Amino acid sequence: LGDIGEFGWIARLARRTRSASDPGVLCGIGDDAAAIRINPPILITTDVLAEGVHFRREWGTSRQLGRRAFAVNASDIAAMGGRPAYALIDLRAPATFPVRELEAIYSGFRDAADRQRVVLIGGNTSSARRLSFGVTLLGRAPHGCLTRDRCRAGDDLYVTGTIGLAALGLAALRAGRRRTVAIRRFLEPPLRVEIACALARTGLVGGMIDVSDGLVQDLGHLCEASGVGAVIDATRGPVPAPRGRLRRRELEHALAGGEDYELLFSALPALSRRIGSIARRYRCNVSRIGRIVRTPRNVRVVDADGRPLSLTARGHDHFRKRR
Amino acid sequence: LGDIGEFGWIARLARRTRSASDPGVLCGIGDDAAAIRINPPILITTDVLAEGVHFRREWGTSRQLGRRAFAVNASDIAAMGGRPAYALIDLRAPATFPVRELEAIYSGFRDAADRQRVVLIGGNTSSARRLSFGVTLLGRAPHGCLTRDRCRAGDDLYVTGTIGLAALGLAALRAGRRRTVAIRRFLEPPLRVEIACALARTGLVGGMIDVSDGLVQDLGHLCEASGVGAVIDATRGPVPAPRGRLRRRELEHALAGGEDYELLFSALPALSRRIGSIARRYRCNVSRIGRIVRTPRNVRVVDADGRPLSLTARGHDHFRKRR
Repeated sequence: LGDIGEFGWIARLARRTRSASDPGVLCGIGDDAAAIRINPPILITTDVLAEGVHFRREWGTSRQLGRRAFAVNASDIAAMGGRPAYALIDLRAPATFPVRELEAIYSGFRDAADRQRVVLIGGNTSSARRLSFGVTLLGRAPHGCLTRDRCRAGDDLYVTGTIGLAALGLAALRAGRRRTVAIRRFLEPPLRVEIACALARTGLVGGMIDVSDGLVQDLGHLCEASGVGAVIDATRGPVPAPRGRLRRRELEHALAGGEDYELLFSALPALSRRIGSIARRYRCNVSRIGRIVRTPRNVRVVDADGRPLSLTARGHDHFRKRR
Repeated sequence: LGDIGEFGWIARLARRTRSASDPGVLCGIGDDAAAIRINPPILITTDVLAEGVHFRREWGTSRQLGRRAFAVNASDIAAMGGRPAYALIDLRAPATFPVRELEAIYSGFRDAADRQRVVLIGGNTSSARRLSFGVTLLGRAPHGCLTRDRCRAGDDLYVTGTIGLAALGLAALRAGRRRTVAIRRFLEPPLRVEIACALARTGLVGGMIDVSDGLVQDLGHLCEASGVGAVIDATRGPVPAPRGRLRRRELEHALAGGEDYELLFSALPALSRRIGSIARRYRCNVSRIGRIVRTPRNVRVVDADGRPLSLTARGHDHFRKRR
């Protein structure tokens, strides 16, 4: 990167970016600030993948890293029932970082962004000891915002896709293993934008959140914001396990593991058939895993007989020690 | 920070932030994404202060750091002729980082932001080896965008405030000195939002950029975007020097130093009286330092007799070696 310099890199980026052709972009890469036309309400979120904190470079390809950086941010926009539209990239890298690697990261990002018609409009580039790739996404929410405070007692609780596989993948990577289904699931999180927008369009979905820090912890955030509690039926969980009974450890892993980037949401029981047809239409498994109850802030996990399971594992917190 | 954890910090932040009371904020800190109502065109910019790259903690107070993080971003919005409205903070810090220090940084940020009626609506918090404080600002541009490509041959060139003092301050800090006027100028960059909006309102200003990487380099960016060249009269520069003749080294320092966060812009010669009255109204020195010429991409610096000075120093680039 030292060979072409900061401005060489920005010029290269501007040439390869189609921001100039988007009618909403008044001013793209290369000015003091970007300028866009976008109708309110506007969603905005930001998240970073930092080497040594969120990933190690040997875990996957540079393209996977770029794609993942897009996906984890798009997941936050989706969890509001919205659709991402514009992106900024905060790149920090050592001067010795190979331009070819950097282009592969951007290429992975761009492939995923292009598919969602998201346009890169700017960002920031600075030197750092280790690579980090931060993304800010702006999005539209034409069907309103599925904020966390909309869960009501009596709602059913749903989750898309599978829970726990990504955490197994992360554990496998940390243990030095390569190329398992679980690892691929961690490196390539799902993109749930289309189904999130379809759910928002019904106007009948309650609160929604994306599962990134562990199902139980993220459900706790939903409950806290809505002033309600929840009961999860552990046997109904969309947990990828050998057929038959789940072992306790696998279950804990699934419920506390995080990195799933699936959608967790509540909806009126009357909506269940409609949710089933949306799930089929978008070819995405949607499981009913429990319900919202009145008791504030209390998330209980029960087994098939309704007996409570007490879990010891907790979700992810950046500053607390892991168990 | 490890004692209260990521979510403890976010909850504390949400309580102290007045985003809930702003009518444009549909959803502030604590959901998957923020949601706002803001009329287009929307300006957006992002910039970071990273320990060891942009600052050392012993250089100034935590409050100054927070204020500076706001100012350098607001400068980019101002340079588009706009006004910042909403902010996101990307905080990265070690788990051992003292919460008290962090609150001082946020307090410095908030003081500056409040004065501009800028509301904190979200961001991201993650662990890192060293402190970094990234800011994304969204702003309004009701009078249009003063992009870099609007300079025309024949325009006069103006710069606000003083050039070169901040770079002297940075050099003094690096040399281990403390508490000089220049150091304070580096630690507390000016906020030129009001005068930038007043200039934009005239509808007669050409291209504008903020001077952050060195006057000559930033002028080069203006010229390149506009397909023009420029001549600067070195003796007219708003360079803080001992009375009388400028020494060559001081001049180079001023022209290549950067960190000024002043506005550099072009305007029709007919606008000079109006610019004078705007300068008086906002109590901000505005100096005419040269003019735009036809020769593309060529920035020349001449002395009082019109003789060209050849400068060896270059502006800042994050990945190239410094001289």
